Parts: sequence; C-alpha cells; structure tokens
Amino acid sequence: MSDKSAGDSGVRDDSRPVVYDLAPDCTITDVSPDDHYHAVVNGVVDYGVFVDISDTVSGLIHESNLDRSYDVGDRLVVTLDSQKENGDIAFAIPAFDDYRTELREHEPDITPINELETGETVTVEGRLVQIKQTGGPTIFEATDGTGIVSGAAFEEAGVRAYPDAAVDDAVRITGDVELHDDVRQLEIESLTVLADETAAAARETIDETLSERATPADIEPLVEWPAFEPIFDDLAALAERLRQTVLEGRPIRIRHHADGDGMCGATPLQLALENFIAEVHADPDAPEHLCKRLPSKAPYYEMEDVTRDLNFALEGQDRHGQKLPLLVMLDNGSTEEDVPAYRNLAHYDIPIAVLDHHHPDPEAVDPLLDAHINPYLYGEDYRITTGMMSVELARLIDPSISDDVEHVPAVAGLSDRSKADVMPRFVFRAKEAGYDRDDLEAIGEALDYAAHWLRYNEGKTLVNDVLDVGCDDSERHERLIEFLAERAERDVERQLDALEPHVEHERLDSEAHLYRIDLDNFAHRFTYPAPGKTTGNLHDRKVTETGEPVITIGYGPDFAVLRSDGVRLDIPRMVTELNEELPGAGVSGGGHLVVGSIKFVKGRRESVIDLLVEKMADADLDESLSSTAPLE
Amino acid sequence: MSDKSAGDSGVRDDSRPVVYDLAPDCTITDVSPDDHYHAVVNGVVDYGVFVDISDTVSGLIHESNLDRSYDVGDRLVVTLDSQKENGDIAFAIPAFDDYRTELREHEPDITPINELETGETVTVEGRLVQIKQTGGPTIFEATDGTGIVSGAAFEEAGVRAYPDAAVDDAVRITGDVELHDDVRQLEIESLTVLADETAAAARETIDETLSERATPADIEPLVEWPAFEPIFDDLAALAERLRQTVLEGRPIRIRHHADGDGMCGATPLQLALENFIAEVHADPDAPEHLCKRLPSKAPYYEMEDVTRDLNFALEGQDRHGQKLPLLVMLDNGSTEEDVPAYRNLAHYDIPIAVLDHHHPDPEAVDPLLDAHINPYLYGEDYRITTGMMSVELARLIDPSISDDVEHVPAVAGLSDRSKADVMPRFVFRAKEAGYDRDDLEAIGEALDYAAHWLRYNEGKTLVNDVLDVGCDDSERHERLIEFLAERAERDVERQLDALEPHVEHERLDSEAHLYRIDLDNFAHRFTYPAPGKTTGNLHDRKVTETGEPVITIGYGPDFAVLRSDGVRLDIPRMVTELNEELPGAGVSGGGHLVVGSIKFVKGRRESVIDLLVEKMADADLDESLSSTAPLE
Amino acid sequence: MSDKSAGDSGVRDDSRPVVYDLAPDCTITDVSPDDHYHAVVNGVVDYGVFVDISDTVSGLIHESNLDRSYDVGDRLVVTLDSQKENGDIAFAIPAFDDYRTELREHEPDITPINELETGETVTVEGRLVQIKQTGGPTIFEATDGTGIVSGAAFEEAGVRAYPDAAVDDAVRITGDVELHDDVRQLEIESLTVLADETAAAARETIDETLSERATPADIEPLVEWPAFEPIFDDLAALAERLRQTVLEGRPIRIRHHADGDGMCGATPLQLALENFIAEVHADPDAPEHLCKRLPSKAPYYEMEDVTRDLNFALEGQDRHGQKLPLLVMLDNGSTEEDVPAYRNLAHYDIPIAVLDHHHPDPEAVDPLLDAHINPYLYGEDYRITTGMMSVELARLIDPSISDDVEHVPAVAGLSDRSKADVMPRFVFRAKEAGYDRDDLEAIGEALDYAAHWLRYNEGKTLVNDVLDVGCDDSERHERLIEFLAERAERDVERQLDALEPHVEHERLDSEAHLYRIDLDNFAHRFTYPAPGKTTGNLHDRKVTETGEPVITIGYGPDFAVLRSDGVRLDIPRMVTELNEELPGAGVSGGGHLVVGSIKFVKGRRESVIDLLVEKMADADLDESLSSTAPLE
Repeated sequence: MSDKSAGDSGVRDDSRPVVYDLAPDCTITDVSPDDHYHAVVNGVVDYGVFVDISDTVSGLIHESNLDRSYDVGDRLVVTLDSQKENGDIAFAIPAFDDYRTELREHEPDITPINELETGETVTVEGRLVQIKQTGGPTIFEATDGTGIVSGAAFEEAGVRAYPDAAVDDAVRITGDVELHDDVRQLEIESLTVLADETAAAARETIDETLSERATPADIEPLVEWPAFEPIFDDLAALAERLRQTVLEGRPIRIRHHADGDGMCGATPLQLALENFIAEVHADPDAPEHLCKRLPSKAPYYEMEDVTRDLNFALEGQDRHGQKLPLLVMLDNGSTEEDVPAYRNLAHYDIPIAVLDHHHPDPEAVDPLLDAHINPYLYGEDYRITTGMMSVELARLIDPSISDDVEHVPAVAGLSDRSKADVMPRFVFRAKEAGYDRDDLEAIGEALDYAAHWLRYNEGKTLVNDVLDVGCDDSERHERLIEFLAERAERDVERQLDALEPHVEHERLDSEAHLYRIDLDNFAHRFTYPAPGKTTGNLHDRKVTETGEPVITIGYGPDFAVLRSDGVRLDIPRMVTELNEELPGAGVSGGGHLVVGSIKFVKGRRESVIDLLVEKMADADLDESLSSTAPLE
Repeated sequence: MSDKSAGDSGVRDDSRPVVYDLAPDCTITDVSPDDHYHAVVNGVVDYGVFVDISDTVSGLIHESNLDRSYDVGDRLVVTLDSQKENGDIAFAIPAFDDYRTELREHEPDITPINELETGETVTVEGRLVQIKQTGGPTIFEATDGTGIVSGAAFEEAGVRAYPDAAVDDAVRITGDVELHDDVRQLEIESLTVLADETAAAARETIDETLSERATPADIEPLVEWPAFEPIFDDLAALAERLRQTVLEGRPIRIRHHADGDGMCGATPLQLALENFIAEVHADPDAPEHLCKRLPSKAPYYEMEDVTRDLNFALEGQDRHGQKLPLLVMLDNGSTEEDVPAYRNLAHYDIPIAVLDHHHPDPEAVDPLLDAHINPYLYGEDYRITTGMMSVELARLIDPSISDDVEHVPAVAGLSDRSKADVMPRFVFRAKEAGYDRDDLEAIGEALDYAAHWLRYNEGKTLVNDVLDVGCDDSERHERLIEFLAERAERDVERQLDALEPHVEHERLDSEAHLYRIDLDNFAHRFTYPAPGKTTGNLHDRKVTETGEPVITIGYGPDFAVLRSDGVRLDIPRMVTELNEELPGAGVSGGGHLVVGSIKFVKGRRESVIDLLVEKMADADLDESLSSTAPLE
Repeated sequence: MSDKSAGDSGVRDDSRPVVYDLAPDCTITDVSPDDHYHAVVNGVVDYGVFVDISDTVSGLIHESNLDRSYDVGDRLVVTLDSQKENGDIAFAIPAFDDYRTELREHEPDITPINELETGETVTVEGRLVQIKQTGGPTIFEATDGTGIVSGAAFEEAGVRAYPDAAVDDAVRITGDVELHDDVRQLEIESLTVLADETAAAARETIDETLSERATPADIEPLVEWPAFEPIFDDLAALAERLRQTVLEGRPIRIRHHADGDGMCGATPLQLALENFIAEVHADPDAPEHLCKRLPSKAPYYEMEDVTRDLNFALEGQDRHGQKLPLLVMLDNGSTEEDVPAYRNLAHYDIPIAVLDHHHPDPEAVDPLLDAHINPYLYGEDYRITTGMMSVELARLIDPSISDDVEHVPAVAGLSDRSKADVMPRFVFRAKEAGYDRDDLEAIGEALDYAAHWLRYNEGKTLVNDVLDVGCDDSERHERLIEFLAERAERDVERQLDALEPHVEHERLDSEAHLYRIDLDNFAHRFTYPAPGKTTGNLHDRKVTETGEPVITIGYGPDFAVLRSDGVRLDIPRMVTELNEELPGAGVSGGGHLVVGSIKFVKGRRESVIDLLVEKMADADLDESLSSTAPLE
C-alpha cells in the first residue's frame, strides 16, 4: 500500500532483477530456469567451476560462460540455465550487476493426501474441515481435494494446539504418517496457517483439485430417453455437489420414504456415497459415520423427524467437532407440508437437496432448498419415479456400481405402478441383467414387506440382500425374495379377505363404482399391509374385477385414504372445500388427481366422509387417469 | 498319485530306510527314537564322539558303538538310541548303508490358545472363525478348541493381509502375545494356511480338542425324576451344541418370553453362557458382545422381532466380521405361529434351538429347527416348565452355577402355576437353599412385575437381583422382592377392584360359571397387570370364590383372553369353527384346552364373543382340567 | 494397649527425646526445625563441620556450636537449628545424651491431583472411587478432593492388581502421568492401601480438601427477595452436596418435567454440573458420562422410567465399575405418586434430591429423600417456580454461568404463568440482559414446542440454543425462537379453531362459566399442543373473552384435564369423593385448587364427567384464584 516498502536503501527500483538467496534446505523443487541465485564455488575443474546455491543444489558453470577464474569459496551470482532429466544443472553468469536480493525459504514437497503412506514424514497443504479437542492432543482434519486426513497435535494434555487455526483455514501441515487405532493419522510436527498470497494460491489449488475430483462420472443414462436429458443434467450437478460435500468432510443424511420406490432410490445412493467416502477418507469407519440413511413413515418431513435429525447433527458437531450435515430428501420433500421442517433447519448450516416425484410446490419449498429435482419441474410427472432418478444419481457419483443397479429402476417403477413410456426399456434392461418381470415385482413386494417390519431401522444389509444391490450371494437373494414376496402376498390376501364382507359398494351418478371400507373396524391392525397399502390393494382388485371407473375410500377414526381410476378427483380442491363447508372438522391432507389421503377430527368423521362422497359423485370421468401409489 | 515321485535316481525303492536331514532350527521336539539322522562330529572324547544333528540338537555316540575313529567335522549317519529326562541324547550307528534322505523342517511347538501368556512368542494352530479388515491391520480370530484368540496382521494400512486365508481354514499362526487396548492379542509374524495332510491332521486335532471341551458337565439333575431322564439327555446334547458354538466363536442370541417362567429360563442360561465365553475368550467384553438376551412380548416370534434380530446379526457380520448367531428360543418358539419368522431366518446360516413347554407343532417347526426340546415331545406336558429345563441346561454348560440356581425351577413352576408331580421336590430343594414357598412365589410375582416395566430392555443386573442369581447382596435381593411383590399384589388388587363391578356373570347350561369382562372399558390401561394377566388373576379369584367350574373371558376391542377350570374348551377347534361360521371376522389365535387368546377385527367383536360363549356353553365339564398361565 | 511396647530394654521412658534415623531417600520435606537427627560428618572446614542426615540432606554445624573436633565419618546427633530459603541448613548439637531412636521413612511429596502434569513421576494420596478390571490392567480411580484421576496397574492380563484395595480405601499411588487414549492417566508403579493413623490422617486431609472444594460459591441471588432467603440457604446446601458428589466421582442423573419450567430448571443445572465435572476429571468425556439429563412426560416419576434408570445405573456399575448415581428430580418428584418409584430405588445406594414446586406431600416422600426443596415447605407456593430455584442452584455450583442464565428465571416464571411478587424483578433483570417480555414469552413457547417434538430425547444443543444458555450464536437463537414460537402459536390457533365449534358451554348456578371439550373426538391428535396444554390454552382464551369466573374441562377416553379461574375447585377432594361415589370407575389423579387432571376407566367416562360437573357447580367462587399450568 505504501511506497516506503522498497528496502533499506530508501531507493525504489522495482525494475532491478531479483537474485534469490536460498535457505540451506532448499531443494531442486525450489529453483526455476532463468532465475538468479547467490552461489559459492565448491570446485574448479578444467571445463568450468562447480557452484552450490544451497546445501543440496549444485551445478556447473561451463568455462565457456566464464569470463574470469574463480577459487573455491568465491561468491558470485548465477542464472539457472538448464536442468537435465538426470538432475544435472547448468548455470550461467548474468550480465547485470545491480540487483536486489530476496531470501527464499524451502518450499517443502507437498504430498497429495490420497498418496500418504504409513512411515513417511510428509507435508500436506489443505483446508481444515474439522477440529476436535481431546483430553490429549487436538485433532485436525484437512482436505486437499484428493482426500481427507486426520492429524494429532499435542501441546499439553487437553490444551488446544495451534489455537489460531480455525475450520476453513488453508494450512500446511508437516508430520509423520502413523497408524493410530488402526487408522492412518498424521502425527503433526508443525501446522502453519497460510496467509495472504500463499493462502490464496493454496486455496486455488485445493479448490481446483477438489472441483476436479468432484466432477461426476461421464456416463450415459441406463436407457436412452430424450425426456430424461434435462433431468439427467441436473442429476449430474447434484452428483457433483454430493461428491464435493464428501470431499469437504461434511456428513450426509438421507431421509427417504419407507416404501419400495423410496428404498430403490436410497439404497444405490447410499452405496455410491459410502464407496466415495471410503475412497476419500483413510478411516474405514468413515462411511458408517458420515452417511446415515433413515426411513420416514409419513409422506412428508415430520416435525418429530426433523427435530431428531437436527438434534443428532448438533450433538455430532458438539461432541466430535463434525460439520453439520447435508440433507438429501428422497421420494419425499417436494411439498408444502415439508416447509415447517425445512424452516426449522434454516437456522443452521444444513444444505438440503430434494429428489422426489410427488406433486411439488416449488414456490413454497424452493426458497429453502439448495437443489430440487422433481419430474414435474421438467414438464414430466410422477411416472418418472424417484428410484429411476436416484439410480442415475448414484451412478454419476460412483459409476462402478452400474452393473449392480441395472435392475433397480424397473423395480422402482413397478413398485409404484409407473405407466411411464420408458418402463418397458427399464424392464428390458433388467431382463438382460437376469431379472424377469415376475422377479422385479417380487422384489418390489419383498422390499415393501421388509420396510414395514424394519420400521425406523435402517436395515442396511437386509435391504441390500432384498434389492440385490451389494449382495454377495445371489442365491440367498432369490430365496429371500421368494419367501418375503410370498409372505407379503399372503398377508395382503388375508387382509382383503377379512375386508371383503364389509366393503360397501354403490354406483355413483357418474356410473363410477364407489367402494368404502371401515379399516378401523374391519382390517387387521398393526400388521402388514397398513391402511394406505390396504386401500390401494383393495382398489386394484376392484379395478381388475369391474374394468370400469372405480373410486375407493379406506377410512379410519380420523383419516381416509383415496384412490381412483377413470375419475378426475382433484383431491387438493376437495380438501379446501371440505374445510370451508365443515368448519371444526379440521380437514387437512393432500394428493393429486387420482390418489390422496386426508385427516380430520374423529368426532366429525361421518360428516366428512358423506360430503366427500357427494363431491366424488360429481367428479368427471376421465379414462386416461389411473392411480399409482406414490403417496402411500 | 504318480509313481514318478520316487526321487532323482528314477529307481523306486520304498523299502530303503529314511535318514532325516534336519533343518538347522529343528529342536528336540522334531526328533524321535529309532529315527535316523545326518550328523556332524563336533567333539571327540575318550568315551566316544559328540555329534550335532541340528543347531541345537546334539548327543553322544558311546565308544562302544563306534567301529572306527572320527575327527571333528566328519559326517555320518546316526540312529537316535535314547533320550534321557535331563535332555541327554545317545546315538548309535545304523547298520545299513543304502538309504534315502528326507529333509525335515522344524515343527514349531504349538501352544494351546488357553495357555498363551503375554510377552511370549508362540505358534498356535487353529481354525479361523472371524476375519475383519480394519483401516490398519487385518484381524484374524482363531479357535483351537481350547480357546479363541485374536491376531493382527499388518500388510499395509487398510490392505487385507494373507488374502488367501478364509474363515474355516485351518491355519498355523506365529506371533508375539501382546496387550492391545487391554486385551491379549497376537501380533502376527506369519500365518500359514495349512493344506492337505497337515490341514487334515490339524483339523482332526482341533475337532477332537473342541469336541472334548464341548462335552457338557457330568452332573445329575437337581431332583430325582424318572420322567425327566430322556429330556435331560437331550438337554445334555443341546448343552454340547451350545458349548461348541461358543468354542467356534459364534454369537448366541436368546429370545425368551417376558414372563416369570421365561425369565427363570433365560437368566441362568445367560449366566452359564457368559461364564463359558469368558473362559474361552481373552477379551472381557466378549460375553457382552457374544451373548444377547432379549425379551419377547408376544407368545410367538413376531415378524418385527425376527426382522430386528436378522438386521442386527447382518450388521454384526458386516461391521465386525462376526459369524451369524445361533438363536435360542426360550418359553416360546414351538408353535406354528413361529414358522414365518423361522422361514425368514432360513435363508441365512442361523441355527435355531427351541426350549419351550407350550403345546408344540413339531411338524410345522421341526424342519426349520436344529434342536427342539419340549415336554410334549416326550409324552409330558406344560407342567414341566421352561425354567425347570433351562436351569438344567445351564448347569450342563457350567456346573459351577448350580448352587446359585437351585431355587429357580421352583420359582418357574410356581410362576406358571405348574401342578407337576415333581413340584414338591423342587420346592423342597429350594427350601434347603433357604427359600420358603412364600419367598418363591414373591420372587415369581416380582419377576413378572419387573419384566412388565422393563418392556424391551434386557435389565440384566436388575433381573439377577430379583431372581437372586449372580446377585452379590442377598439382603438387597430380599428387600427388592418384598417391595416389588407387594407392589405387584397391590396393583393386581387395584385392577381387580376396578373390574369387579363390571364383571358379567352367567350360569351356563353345563353348570359352569361364565365371567366376562370388557377390559378396554373397565380395566386400567397401559399399566400392570396387562390384559392377559388381568384375566388370569380374575379367573383365579373366581375359581377360589366358587370352587366350581369356571370360564373367564377378558376382551378388548379386537382380542379376547380365555381361561377355564373344570371345563374342556379346546380353543384351537373353536378358532377354526369361528373362522368358518363368521367369515370376515378375521379370527385367529391359539392355546389349548384351558387357556388361550384370540384376535378378531374390531367391528365384529360382538358376534365373535357371542358365538364363542355359545360354544363354551356346549363344552364338557372335566374336573381334571385346570388352567395355568403359560400362554399369557 | 500394652505397657510392653516400650522397646528392647524393657524400660519405659517416654520422656526421653527422640532422635530420628532418616532413611537414605529422605528429602528436605521429611525434616523439621528443632527435631533431632543421627548425622555423619562428611567434611571439616575452618568455620565448622558439614554433616549428612540422609543421602540428600546435609548442613553445617558452625564451629561456635562445636565443643570438640570431628573427623570425616564420625557419627553424632544433631538438632536442626535453622533452614534458609536457599536451602542451607544449620545444625546444632543437643545437650542430652539419653534418647531413643526412631526410624523415619521418606514421606514422598504428594502432588494434588489437579496439578498432575504429563511426563512426571508423582505420588498422589486419595480415596478409591472406582475399580474396573479390564482384560489387561486393573483401572483404579481416586479422588483427593482436588480432582479425580485414573490409574492403570498391570499384574497379569485380566488379573486383578492389588486385590486388597477396595472402593473407599485411602491409598497412596506412585506412578508416571501418561496419556492413554488421549486422556491423562497414571501408569501405576505402586499402590499402597493406607492403614491406621496414616489412613486416618489421609482421610482427614482428603475430606478437608474435598469439603473445601465442595463449598458452593459465595454469591447473592439474582434478585433481592427476602422470602427466598431460607430457600437460598438450602439450595446452597444442595449445591455443596452436588459438588461433593462430583468430587467423589459419583454420576448424577437429572429427571425433569418436559415442559418450559422443567427445561429452564434442568438446562442451567446440567451446564453447571458439566463445567464442574470437566474441572474435576481429566477425561473430557467425563461430563458426558457422568451427568445425564432425561425428560419425563408424566407429572410424576413413572415405574417405567425408574425401572429404566435403575437398570442403566446397575449396568454402569456392572460394566464400568461406576458408582450408582445420585438422582436429581426437577419440577417433579414432590408428590405421593412418586413414592413407588422412590421405594424401588431405596434398595440401592442412590441418593435422591428433589427440587419441585408442585404441591408436596413431605410425609410421604421425605423419608425416601436426601434433600427436598419445595416452596410450599417454606410457606410459599407454586408461584416460585422450579426454574427460578434451579438457576440459583446452578450458579451456586458454578457462578461463572451467571451472565448466561440471568434471563432464565423470567422465562420459567412466564412459562408457568407465575404471578409471584418477584416476577417483575426477574423480568427487569432479563431486560437488562437484553431480553424484553415478548422475547421471554417467545422463548417459553419455543421451549415447550421443542420439548414436545424432542419427546424422550435430551436434545442438549438444541435446547441450549432455544434457551440461549451456552449458545454461541445469539443471532441463531433469535431466528430459532422466532420460528419455533410462531410455529407453536400457529399450532395452538389451529387446535383451538378446530375445537371451537365443539366446545359446550353452560352457566353454573354459581354464575361461573363451564366449558367442556371432547378432545378425543375434536382435537387434532398426536400433535402439538397435546391435551393438557390444549385445555390450558382454551381456558386462557375463555378467561380473556369473558373476564368472569371460568372452569374448563378437556376430556379424552379415560382422562380429563381441569382448569379454573375465580373458582375454588379443590381437586384432590373431588377425586376422593368421586372414588367413593362411583365405585369401579377407577378414578385417580391430583392437582390443587385451580388445576388438575384425573384418570378413570373408559367405560365410566360419562358418569365421572357428569358427577364432576355437579361438584363444580357447587364450588365457591374466589376471585383470588387463578390457574397456572404447573401440572401440565
């Protein structure tokens, strides 16, 4: 900033050449051709003189470049002329004699974190991502874009080492790579917080490396499908974001709908992320600690779930110095009902990415999201299921899983009864991978059945075995599917048989069939299938039996599940109207044209159902409409 | 296999004597009398010459055995003549001069795993039972039948050492016995997978040792009891199986009915298994990790429970490289209702052993079980309770617990109101151990009460204190029992007093009294005693009051609990009939002649109860029948 | 005891002076002025002779004190005359020549535990508080009143070292201070159980130090308030008890009511205890392990909770050798309903301290408690809330938190709608700290809302952020409050709007308004606000609307919540009468003059509510009475 910075002479002459005075420990990596150095003669031979410019860097000035003779010990200024592959260096003697001298410290060799080897003493340059004070050393975690490493610095028991270093600082760390509790760790000898230009340069290198490593795989979607292209581009951007998140040491928490499509979406993504985390971290427990998958029972992000997630994240930060996580919502998260939960997180540094195919409310949720991928936002609809999209996301993160997940989009689609145009291609692709249509449907049923009994448990290995993703024994997968699918089917039959005598049927003015069932009184409770799926199964059976427009209502004490085929219901509008016409019935809920669920207060059930049926009787027929089960 | 194996000469002459050329590191354990060895003279004395046959094995050829003189350094062939206790060896000179030479490697001293001592360098031979890759070394766990030891082999951080070694391989491991995180561990220097004959020999030795160590204790049952003998023999076989399971490093998971008899069965078994695991493993945390006890609320193995168990087992395998567990079902597991859960496990290597006294359905369950002990299978019935059998099983596994569990069969029997002929003897035995009949009944009540509030928790120490098994403070036990039993009794009184005004009474045509109670409307809910026990207590009171045949029905919205005395109900037949006569009522359930429970859909409760009462009115009186509470 | 103890001579002469024969390793700390010592001349100079009294303690006898000459090696008796600051010692020669000799061992320098430094070899004297046998060393934990330290003693793998040492023994431990798994630990070289007088002296020192360190801070209450003084004195005694508990290494378990006042009480106390535990223990995980806070949903200590707590405590004792905990009940625990739980704990060494403001039943609970602080016991009432008292308790334990908790009493008071005379002063104090009344009310609402969704989770960091205690980002606190409070208000509005059309109103003979609402049929269930709070909110709205005496009853299938303003209900008496007049209705419950809740069996709801209303109609008006929500 000031002109007074020119040096002792008081004379400013920036145009003078710089001659470097190398520190004794400078190595070949600290010198560059055409730079000038202070040198000392260490040998005189016929063909020239040898000079040292540091303890280990020497070279020859050929006699042709000499204009006078030198003795050992003479000081002079030299210019680095050339450097051969074998390490030989040739110097020349520069023409100038007015210059300024700059000291140059040894720039240590920086080892990329993913190349650290136990037993070496190394220097790494990276950005701090986590700092934890233990009762002994302080633990620093740094990323350089190639990987993440932990280092222990000991000042005094329980005393914070390098108190000036903060998360996100660019630092240079020198230390020994050792094994600590079976995990590679740096025993830190020195940690320097970089400043100014050095910091800026380091940050740039780290960001470049990180950005390069975050680049998603250059792959094609599993099946050709023009409508999918814009979605695929955004999935690639999300894949990059997630890889970057891993490279920055931030945990990831996946909240997914606990049904077939949700599981098909979550399982490959978890596998891909865990693989990449294992690659980035030396600690084999890192995938376990940094990627958590949790099923959600409700079709939206409940306050209880978000409170638990936030609490977990804050404890991780408090106890382990972990960053707050990035949240991925899968097959869930696009609707206005998710807003309260998101607003709860908005006060913390918790980015949110949503991958969903339920009818979205972008105006409500987008201001709170960091990424939002939903087929409706691309002019498509729920027929593109979450599982179809998430499999591609997973492959973009780790393409090595491709062979293992080829069949998953077909399972997801069949599980959600998707009538997407692309379904036959997914089914064909799955067939090539060895799964015929019956297998795929059985996997979907088995997944749903397993999800039901797992309740709030992640059930990783079991789900992997059922879905045949990361399952090492295909025979076991097959036997498991056979058992679970058969069992699921049997339980559905049993449930429908119990209901059948109690189903009320009427023919609406529109000629549509209306079926009503009191689930509280006539369904087996607290077992598989639960009310939503029970209603769906009953509806499917009635559609098949009649071949005509059908509406099905399954109701409990304070809720009703709605399904229709060939009738345009527009459930959100009905909810609005019910609320106006029945004050104090506390009607809420949602869905779309052919599927939905509503809640109300127990004491007004009769009025709500009666009025609902009245409205349904007025609904127009529309052959093109058919219900799938995404809201279930 | 081939005749060409005879040697360089191409001449086959198997009849020639073998002379061993010992490797330099061979020791005294590698030589045997009458074998021949290549030797070198290392000293000449008046009375003979000293020869070396390896670096450390030397001996004297007495001059009486010499037919010529030797100089130091001369080579010759010798025969091991004798070996004294002090280690002195005498050689002779053999008569033959045509022989073939075989190299003999040093066979290391094999140390039994249960004799390893910290600080020693040892070689063990065993079978691999677990392999876990950490971020540092690979951890191998091996059993030799005497114990199990962990060893760490380091190849490179996170890289699998000895990748050819697999679980179940017979291996020889050499290494230093060290302490790692306070647990004895081998620092592996070399690990060799044994092959061919060496492997076969090692396996044989391991199997023999293991089988010997697996042999159950040679003990008598706590009381003399001829009817019990065949059961006792099968308990001994199961004890052997369980000891073997421990010796092979496989975890054990106990699922037991959460009532008095179930606890009486599970607690001693857990204690015995933990003791034996502690004996076999060096790691003091091993009993905790390898033996889990879990209460089951339902009278059968629920899908939710089995899903959780399977998930837990698979995570253990995935994260810790653990074997899948053996499952022990206690006071639970003999009926057709358990089949779905068993079939879920059938796809995995999870052996199942059942010890139960509920009316079994061997045709349904036996194909899925590895062991099934149930008094009905021996011509006995539920009066032999699970606790009576399990105490013997526990003693067979670890007889040292005998003194601590003498009173438990009596508690189990009284808790299940067993009228077994042998009950007085158990009660007498308990009296000798210091517990009179009131104590035993109070313990049973206290156990039931504690189990109720523990819900899904294991509650090990508390249960031990209540049952006075492994409890170190008998005064505390007594005060605890006094409090809990009194409290249980008070709560039962309170519940019955609340019910009394609402109990409906009628006299059936058969002259039996029928008592009905609407538990949902008139019982205190979500507290002790729960509906099953409440009905039982009410029934007992009515039996005592009337002294005549009594049937009691306690019902909720979708279930009913049945108890009878002096009436032959045959509940399974009633369920079948109800199902036929009331389609859509979804009736299911079970039990036997005098006790049972049924479920139905809420909306058909009235019809179900009415028809049930009709059938009960027709039931024959049978004074010999009395209900106990095993199904509760 | 015996006169024969005088020595070899058989002659007893206690009056002879003692001359100490120092052990060679005695140091300057082992000598005292005027004591006499056996000495050896080690140098003769002009001005006197130098003598040694141990290997390292020497000094000069000035020639003026000498009456004869000495040679090197001569033995004599000396008296320690003076000791200069620089360590120089001057001896004199005593006049006596008849004396008895006593050996004096070196008394090692005792290092206070809170001054241990890694790398030193030290000796500490303390009382054993925990002994844990691992598979390797035995771990001893000792307190000396200044702190607690762990030490590892290795005898043989898994073998108990120093088997004679027991918890509570006074011991002297010598060893190296090392880091073990990042925690300061003594590597024990020797551990001596002190006996007799040494033990007594050590105990006295430890007790004195401990008692001194346990002394609570000498502080004033946050606001001046004469009525509070006697309570404050007892809070200081409880603070001392809790500090002492920490210094003795005993865990502390806090069970608190899960509402606004309960959280306001528990959060500062947890913070203060954790700070003090961190100070006392070297292990940074100690606060986490030794202080657990758990919310209770019920307004009393439920059997399920106490069973879980006891089980947890016993496992901690069994697995980690931990002491059983001290239990602190907060905003809960004063009533007869807590007795069963307390009696369950009475069989174990688990002291209980209660800090509550609900109407207490000291006759029932006091015999089971170690401390009981409740404003009713001091002639005050529920208007002094738990939060007001607990903040003072926390400050007495750790005054450094004072600035952070100044606003908490006002939040607690407003949250419980306290009309205490002191409220304005608390509100003023909070205003000085930057929180105006709206802020405080919003914090209370937010706290209640967060508590609802946290359910059984501790939610430490989240609660700290909401309450702004130990929260490092005040902007985040503000945004969080804004969101949660607004959300809570919205949910309350939504609930009241749903109820409004179904509220039944009647005017009682007393002119009071009676409002009844069927919560099961008309309230949104399983959401915020729950039935108790819903009734309270409805009541508040009606009081505001009418400005006249109001009674509100919110009822479910088997419970009713009661609130009144301007009417003297005396709920406990009503419960007693209902029980007498309606046998079999199972009425129970409690409360006081203006607020309460009752339970009954579902089938008698109508009769109970009708009779209740009858009784309410007879209740006297009393303008001075207004309901707060302490029972909710």
